[in-house]
Amino acid sequence: MTAISVLGTGSWGTALANVLLDNGHDVMMWGRSQTVAAHLAADKRNPDYLPDIRLNDNMTATTDINQAVSHADVLIVAVPTQAMRDVCQQIDSVATKPKTVIHVSKGLEPKSFKRISEIIEEEIDQSHLKGVGVLSGPSHAEEVAKRQPTTVAIASNDGSIRKLGQDLFMCDYFRVYTNDDLIGVEIGGALKNIIALAAGLSDGLGYGDNAKAALMTRGLAEITRLGVKMGADPMTYLGMAGLGDLIVTCTSVHSRNWRCGEMLARGLTLEETLERMGMVVEGVRTTQAAYEMASAYGVEMPITGALYDVLFNKGPVEENVKALMNRQKTNE
Amino acid sequence: MTAISVLGTGSWGTALANVLLDNGHDVMMWGRSQTVAAHLAADKRNPDYLPDIRLNDNMTATTDINQAVSHADVLIVAVPTQAMRDVCQQIDSVATKPKTVIHVSKGLEPKSFKRISEIIEEEIDQSHLKGVGVLSGPSHAEEVAKRQPTTVAIASNDGSIRKLGQDLFMCDYFRVYTNDDLIGVEIGGALKNIIALAAGLSDGLGYGDNAKAALMTRGLAEITRLGVKMGADPMTYLGMAGLGDLIVTCTSVHSRNWRCGEMLARGLTLEETLERMGMVVEGVRTTQAAYEMASAYGVEMPITGALYDVLFNKGPVEENVKALMNRQKTNE
Repeated sequence: MTAISVLGTGSWGTALANVLLDNGHDVMMWGRSQTVAAHLAADKRNPDYLPDIRLNDNMTATTDINQAVSHADVLIVAVPTQAMRDVCQQIDSVATKPKTVIHVSKGLEPKSFKRISEIIEEEIDQSHLKGVGVLSGPSHAEEVAKRQPTTVAIASNDGSIRKLGQDLFMCDYFRVYTNDDLIGVEIGGALKNIIALAAGLSDGLGYGDNAKAALMTRGLAEITRLGVKMGADPMTYLGMAGLGDLIVTCTSVHSRNWRCGEMLARGLTLEETLERMGMVVEGVRTTQAAYEMASAYGVEMPITGALYDVLFNKGPVEENVKALMNRQKTNE
Repeated sequence: MTAISVLGTGSWGTALANVLLDNGHDVMMWGRSQTVAAHLAADKRNPDYLPDIRLNDNMTATTDINQAVSHADVLIVAVPTQAMRDVCQQIDSVATKPKTVIHVSKGLEPKSFKRISEIIEEEIDQSHLKGVGVLSGPSHAEEVAKRQPTTVAIASNDGSIRKLGQDLFMCDYFRVYTNDDLIGVEIGGALKNIIALAAGLSDGLGYGDNAKAALMTRGLAEITRLGVKMGADPMTYLGMAGLGDLIVTCTSVHSRNWRCGEMLARGLTLEETLERMGMVVEGVRTTQAAYEMASAYGVEMPITGALYDVLFNKGPVEENVKALMNRQKTNE
């Protein structure tokens, strides 16, 4: 039994805490909302995100960051990208000894394009940080909370953290592969949202399964090209954090990136779409980031380029698809 | 304008003939059924396979193999795997000069496990055969016949055939990539049916998107391992004939392989399932072929192995999934 704190009481943090509790660990969740923390501890439910799922009986939660950080030497950080710096600063301010930090976020920091592990290393002092890992893969939180079979990857530069993550999480419904390519796994999780947005556009235009499968295939090729330029191992994109996550995100109508694309295809502007959705759509920011990075690194990314034109230049959707189909004849 | 004959009046042959007609070529279809040929020529419809789609006005069809073969030096062969030897013998018996043969079939010959291009080269005399190619990728025939965006690969050992195929087929709704890996493309088209069957099983058991995405990801890894041992280029499996075709087959409820798996999950035996479906399920034969080839080549294929146990040893479905999830902890 290991003491573990899970920071972030969204659906994914809750589902992962539940896996760890099922594996017999001593888990404490932390979040800002007093109501959610109280429900988690008392009813073993997360009223905001997984209202219909009864969680493990041993679920506990607090809103006191000091209590959460002092509870455990292993911290699972499951907060949105934009909250990451702030939460890391809080961890650093209350930690009294080195922590192993495993994050489960999929994004890049706006403007700086920094990966989450870079943010963690910048904000938590070396004396409070034992090492960093990331858990990623095809994993709708609701299915994990329902204990349906799920397979993910844990990546870190430190082999002992990879093994620790695998040992803590793995069980008969949650299979964990280790992967030593931290950069590749973090970038894969972020860039796949671009292709999910494009897949939503394709579906919204009434195109079929052929178009979407082609988009996903060529999409994986172009995010791999960019990832490799940024230091990733190309094989990572054939794994759970690349192909696996891409499949689940592009084929699910629950993905907010897919929904955003689908609304754009129906003729709404980006502003109208984001206003109606009322929440952050990571794929929009990531498209901008990838577009700028592709230009900086000299990487050809035609799908990202077409999507950028639609999102930020009000480019015509159908003409952009036609242009993709009619690019110069080439080999695979 | 090039004269082309399309042999086989199933849905895929019909859709491809329609693409070629849209591109302005002089196309003749050939099939056994007098009724279908008459409908194609008179109503520009295929009553058996694509009844609701009005095809190109210039569609023509015959039941006379001699007429079809003498019409063109380029033959597109779109008949099922089990009819391939017979049709090739017929081509050989009436041909008077060398033909370029591009096939579009996805299977391996039962027992011999031969690829389609090997069958073509065995049955058509060198004096009647200029060269062989294969067209493959994510392509529901109905979507192609409706002129929805579709992307495929053409593979051949002969660069001039790759270029010919690309030039003949490519248009604003049908994008064609060239690929020089004939073996890899042919094997990819066949082996993906194994994973489609397994995906149907997973869905039939009520497992979710996470499980299916993991199955597809690890499935592509194991068919790539086998393909490479048989002489394929691993990069082919990241392309249209690998990943692309895998996605479209595993995520469509129209796939007969998927449906077969789904019925097995509901507790029907293989015999009952095949009887109810009343047609050939390529994935069943291919699972047996791949199982035997994996053993011969010493390739690890855990998903194929589990599926083989379910199909041919009446192995328990859920226990086989649990065993897959609980295999030794490993890296990607």
